[in-house]
Amino acid sequence: MDQPTIRDVRAILTSPGEGSLQKRLIVVKVETSEPGLYGLGCATFTQRHSAVRVVVDEFLRPLLMGRDPQRIEDLWQTLHVNAYWRSGPVMNNALSGVDMALWDLKGKLAGLPVYQLLGGKCREGAAVYRHADGAEPEEVEANVRRFMEQGLRYIRAQMGGYGGRGSDAPRPEGALPGAYFDPERHARSVVRLFDHLRATIGEDVELLHDVHERLVPIEAVRLAKALEPHRLFFLEDVLPPEQIEWFRLIRQQCTTPLAMGELFVNANEWKPLLEGRLIDFIRCHISAIGGLTPARKLATVCEHFGIRTAWHGPGDVSPVGHAANVHLDVSSLNFGVQEWAGFSELEQEMFPGCPEIRGAYAYPNDRPGLGIDVDEKLAAKYPCPEGVLDWTQTRTPDGTPAYP
Amino acid sequence: MDQPTIRDVRAILTSPGEGSLQKRLIVVKVETSEPGLYGLGCATFTQRHSAVRVVVDEFLRPLLMGRDPQRIEDLWQTLHVNAYWRSGPVMNNALSGVDMALWDLKGKLAGLPVYQLLGGKCREGAAVYRHADGAEPEEVEANVRRFMEQGLRYIRAQMGGYGGRGSDAPRPEGALPGAYFDPERHARSVVRLFDHLRATIGEDVELLHDVHERLVPIEAVRLAKALEPHRLFFLEDVLPPEQIEWFRLIRQQCTTPLAMGELFVNANEWKPLLEGRLIDFIRCHISAIGGLTPARKLATVCEHFGIRTAWHGPGDVSPVGHAANVHLDVSSLNFGVQEWAGFSELEQEMFPGCPEIRGAYAYPNDRPGLGIDVDEKLAAKYPCPEGVLDWTQTRTPDGTPAYP
Amino acid sequence: MDQPTIRDVRAILTSPGEGSLQKRLIVVKVETSEPGLYGLGCATFTQRHSAVRVVVDEFLRPLLMGRDPQRIEDLWQTLHVNAYWRSGPVMNNALSGVDMALWDLKGKLAGLPVYQLLGGKCREGAAVYRHADGAEPEEVEANVRRFMEQGLRYIRAQMGGYGGRGSDAPRPEGALPGAYFDPERHARSVVRLFDHLRATIGEDVELLHDVHERLVPIEAVRLAKALEPHRLFFLEDVLPPEQIEWFRLIRQQCTTPLAMGELFVNANEWKPLLEGRLIDFIRCHISAIGGLTPARKLATVCEHFGIRTAWHGPGDVSPVGHAANVHLDVSSLNFGVQEWAGFSELEQEMFPGCPEIRGAYAYPNDRPGLGIDVDEKLAAKYPCPEGVLDWTQTRTPDGTPAYP
Amino acid sequence: MDQPTIRDVRAILTSPGEGSLQKRLIVVKVETSEPGLYGLGCATFTQRHSAVRVVVDEFLRPLLMGRDPQRIEDLWQTLHVNAYWRSGPVMNNALSGVDMALWDLKGKLAGLPVYQLLGGKCREGAAVYRHADGAEPEEVEANVRRFMEQGLRYIRAQMGGYGGRGSDAPRPEGALPGAYFDPERHARSVVRLFDHLRATIGEDVELLHDVHERLVPIEAVRLAKALEPHRLFFLEDVLPPEQIEWFRLIRQQCTTPLAMGELFVNANEWKPLLEGRLIDFIRCHISAIGGLTPARKLATVCEHFGIRTAWHGPGDVSPVGHAANVHLDVSSLNFGVQEWAGFSELEQEMFPGCPEIRGAYAYPNDRPGLGIDVDEKLAAKYPCPEGVLDWTQTRTPDGTPAYP
Repeated sequence: MDQPTIRDVRAILTSPGEGSLQKRLIVVKVETSEPGLYGLGCATFTQRHSAVRVVVDEFLRPLLMGRDPQRIEDLWQTLHVNAYWRSGPVMNNALSGVDMALWDLKGKLAGLPVYQLLGGKCREGAAVYRHADGAEPEEVEANVRRFMEQGLRYIRAQMGGYGGRGSDAPRPEGALPGAYFDPERHARSVVRLFDHLRATIGEDVELLHDVHERLVPIEAVRLAKALEPHRLFFLEDVLPPEQIEWFRLIRQQCTTPLAMGELFVNANEWKPLLEGRLIDFIRCHISAIGGLTPARKLATVCEHFGIRTAWHGPGDVSPVGHAANVHLDVSSLNFGVQEWAGFSELEQEMFPGCPEIRGAYAYPNDRPGLGIDVDEKLAAKYPCPEGVLDWTQTRTPDGTPAYP
Repeated sequence: MDQPTIRDVRAILTSPGEGSLQKRLIVVKVETSEPGLYGLGCATFTQRHSAVRVVVDEFLRPLLMGRDPQRIEDLWQTLHVNAYWRSGPVMNNALSGVDMALWDLKGKLAGLPVYQLLGGKCREGAAVYRHADGAEPEEVEANVRRFMEQGLRYIRAQMGGYGGRGSDAPRPEGALPGAYFDPERHARSVVRLFDHLRATIGEDVELLHDVHERLVPIEAVRLAKALEPHRLFFLEDVLPPEQIEWFRLIRQQCTTPLAMGELFVNANEWKPLLEGRLIDFIRCHISAIGGLTPARKLATVCEHFGIRTAWHGPGDVSPVGHAANVHLDVSSLNFGVQEWAGFSELEQEMFPGCPEIRGAYAYPNDRPGLGIDVDEKLAAKYPCPEGVLDWTQTRTPDGTPAYP
Repeated sequence: MDQPTIRDVRAILTSPGEGSLQKRLIVVKVETSEPGLYGLGCATFTQRHSAVRVVVDEFLRPLLMGRDPQRIEDLWQTLHVNAYWRSGPVMNNALSGVDMALWDLKGKLAGLPVYQLLGGKCREGAAVYRHADGAEPEEVEANVRRFMEQGLRYIRAQMGGYGGRGSDAPRPEGALPGAYFDPERHARSVVRLFDHLRATIGEDVELLHDVHERLVPIEAVRLAKALEPHRLFFLEDVLPPEQIEWFRLIRQQCTTPLAMGELFVNANEWKPLLEGRLIDFIRCHISAIGGLTPARKLATVCEHFGIRTAWHGPGDVSPVGHAANVHLDVSSLNFGVQEWAGFSELEQEMFPGCPEIRGAYAYPNDRPGLGIDVDEKLAAKYPCPEGVLDWTQTRTPDGTPAYP
Repeated sequence: MDQPTIRDVRAILTSPGEGSLQKRLIVVKVETSEPGLYGLGCATFTQRHSAVRVVVDEFLRPLLMGRDPQRIEDLWQTLHVNAYWRSGPVMNNALSGVDMALWDLKGKLAGLPVYQLLGGKCREGAAVYRHADGAEPEEVEANVRRFMEQGLRYIRAQMGGYGGRGSDAPRPEGALPGAYFDPERHARSVVRLFDHLRATIGEDVELLHDVHERLVPIEAVRLAKALEPHRLFFLEDVLPPEQIEWFRLIRQQCTTPLAMGELFVNANEWKPLLEGRLIDFIRCHISAIGGLTPARKLATVCEHFGIRTAWHGPGDVSPVGHAANVHLDVSSLNFGVQEWAGFSELEQEMFPGCPEIRGAYAYPNDRPGLGIDVDEKLAAKYPCPEGVLDWTQTRTPDGTPAYP
């Protein structure tokens, strides 16, 4: 066949299930001059979904029409700088949708799974971690044990939601709406939780914990140090991106492994942490940094620094995005662990070819490209609802808006 | 077809031309269970050619037999650590031969040129630099002008060989054999050369210079500073790998762009230079660091640090190695310039599919894989001569053995 | 007599015993124009033995023929730089064989043991450490006690092999062959082992432990800190050479003494550790860094930095190499401890003049040179088997190739 | 023969010539139980000659009697720490006398020149520099040219003595006795001198200059920078040992090569300069740092840092000390240049076996040990005069005591 060119680019939005504000997925489809030859990429940004669609359809599409889809390195850079102001959420998500679709396409052109293009597998599967929650230590313990029985080896334990969301934090007079929580109480409860878990479950499972940036800096340092005896696999987002310099202080105080990055949107955020070897796991949200092209590079840079990957894998990543995660996981020597939210039956029907989990590991399939498709008709039946999220309206007990 | 497995691995040695000690080329051929499906990689180490062959044939071959050739990341690491002591010349060259061959194979399996697997082209061709020599400034000038007339934009200017090799440096009583040169005289002559070139040719051509590590550290600093007004494109190997800490002093004293790395054999040599942003171009010898897999990663790490690539491309790299250089050049965003030695007619006949130079640029061809083959029958007609090189037996005027 | 010149150089390979892949010894013999006057040096690189032989016989030999064997400093540098790419395994081992042989020769010419040439003894014997292994803490304890009863004062305690090799680490689907081990489990078991040993044996013996680079960086830091209360004499190879920058973090967190270096192959690997005073013991493999000439210099440089020596002394060093270790040990003011593998009866017969161990100490003999010979006829009866090692094909539970 | 033991140790003092305060030489003789077997070492400290004799005869001798002279490393350390307060002038000179004598002895026992024990020659001869003085630039030029005609390639140019000693610096009322000089005038005159020399003689000779620590720090920086265009081989003692931190400022400002160290008496003085790569040549006075044992180590440490040696070699070093310098010079890979004062006919008669200068190089002889003897009867005819030096009573124009 002739060299295919790009014939169309568009964003597909869907909210599988009840049409949840928290699950507005965006997939970009890049179609070529070759009938039936297209690629898919994840551009999901649940909180600002329609802005991403606008960037894809109005700004990236015209730059891509008629171009050679195989020149990914060239197109990525071309799209990246085209708005002059570059990177950041919205634009990175849009770019990611295109970029992953181009890798998917390249795999299909090669007749090879994307992990082959990235160097081939260097492990059989990607170890995953699941999320065990509960109101009290005993309930968390029960949920941890349930996952252990399923063969999982890495489990994130949380109590009362991130930072005690929904907790009965006392509210001041005239309190505004929002999800109030008490950072101090949260910090204390976490230590109590892990005291319980290590005492009852022992050390033969890897435990993780996500602070979700809900502490002031010195409290974050204190918590990281307090959790040192509990031998966490990692402590996640212990500081907000606005206060990354405090990681140095944590490093001086303890050996608790640190994971950071799901909110990062450009390299100036991770550079000092990498160059100072101040974290142990990079866990960017791949579609928030622009797709597989920058993620693959970031994995390589982290390998240089002795830092492992733990890409963000929450429920509001589309299955296409999860597939991309897993392809990168199995081909990166410095892969650490993969967050795993699981797919509903509807999602698996809507996105044929979802990566599968067996025992402790997730596995990509071996079809060309990312190995995943989208049933557009089915997707269209679940349109995204309009509106803004509630949980990102968070306040501390005195009514101060806080990091969610 | 079934997934191919590795059926054989062997080193092909040849010395196209008169059988020169300085041109003992090594190409590794990885054959698969699929008839006619094989990959080629460059393992050339002219100075210790037969030791590389032993590593390939006796140690890497048994580790590779029956394995899946597509798991490059896995196989690279497996071979890399198998000898326990890792990296270094000889073993890295052997590993490179296998690694490039696996990339060549993967390209053939995909039906795509290797540059496509690396992300696709982000430029049309790779700007090259050529080497202009001469005994006096006027002769160098004439040779520079000759290259300019051929359309070249980057030219490395040397006078009297590296460090004035073959010069009439005074010798002490009882002088041992070897190529005597005088570092001080060399340093002074270089400034004189570039005074002449800039005065006669002007600034509309990029000039480079290679010190070939032939100065003591403070003299290297002094020369880099003295050449600051001559606006070199870069100054190459101004210090030996044994004294890389002195790059910091050069950085404090001047803005002459610095290229380094052809002698590096593992990451601990380039790490401090990259992390300190102490050089501007990385120019490792790709087969000396273990092939495309580490070179691709090194290019990515350099992109993080704002450093460009200028891979080593002398006459004693096989055409297969030159092809690998060019595939990487056209797909690396932070490519700088490519050293170019050119191919003899015999080399082009022996290695069908050599990359071509047109005007200022080198171009890979678009055939699957590295796009280059070897005529084994022809290669066998030019066996490698035995013996050791003379130019690497270098001494300073008082008879001290020096870096060659 | 006239000044002797070098008349021949060759590698002698032997595998005393059953012809083990793990015991392919290489000794270099440098013969002179003076009948019966020759020197011996260790060039052993078990994993790539035949490549070392090629370098010795084909490349170093022609450079040495007819030269003055007493100019060691000159010849070392001349051989070192002759391949242009220098250092690294294979070439350093070959160079070491020649270098030690030249020191052995110089001792014979002087009629003095090599330790006399190095400045003479500054202690009576070299304290050694032995290796006590076991599947459970009680078994390790029993083996430690056995060595204590033999008078030893330094004992390295390991449980389940390095990193738990051979353990029943769970394997993923489709697991490739290799020695699977679980780094996390290993790290936890080490602390348990030393809890037991210190509780049962007390503090009157110096305990050591070798991590064998089998942990990711932050886990290495955590282990070093966890072992601080156990007062190790040193913790060995807690990080791989690829991640030496993390030693700084260990230093910030604890006072566990650190030994490093058996895998180092050139100065850029140890420089930052020495200059930062980040380790306490240098334990290079002398034949892997090029012989006594660089080792003597490295010992001196370490003395400057307040760092002690603990040269690598495993079973796959030839008795000639062990002799060289001990000569250096007794004449270096900053000697720390010597790893000791012991010699079989066959080895003692094949290499007359092996250094001896009495009580806690090893002693060189007082014959001229290194004081050790080789029975070439006997050696020839035990040819080296071909093949590659299995234990260096190591994987973590998910199938990732790991540092062996 | 049996192992010899030390039978006697004594200091020999002599002032060959007119009995000059500036030439009170001290040689230590270590005699052994073997008749006729003895060693000689230089302990010269002209300014405190008799104190050195007291240390040798009253304190070191009893520690040495009956000991094995071959255990140099042991004895050096034993003597070094015996006074509890260690190092420093007087004690280091005495220790040096013993230490060099032990190396001389070891060479005689081995039947080898000392350079053989140090690793053998790595060059044919040691390039020397001579001292050209004069009242005006033209006179200095004439003296420089005279040396050039003798074949010398390195010449130190001074005008009006160190710091303009003997100059007509204006003196204040009531001026005390002493050698007045004007640092500012000196600094300006030096630039004028090198303007003249480079203009008249050109660049084909290496010029050196000695500031003799006679400038305040910022003036030293200014001078080093002002001399950058004159391309000195090195600028010597530009700062006093009391102000070594200012070397960093010089390094930030210019590339003038720096030599330092003749006044250093222990490692804490040179450590920061070496570790910061702040100087280019170490030029300690070997007998002031304790002899060949520490000098050999210091040379090795400097090799690590890329720094060359230029051992102090003034007229008030005994020929035995000069011989030791040259033995070390020809066997140190990182030798730079050797200061050379030359010997009178009387000195050559009194010390048979002085090293010789031919063309640009000094050569040790090839006799066992240091190859030099002392005619004690002749030496006794030239007893050392008592008294204190005049030139070390130096003042600046306002009468302030200054560094001499």
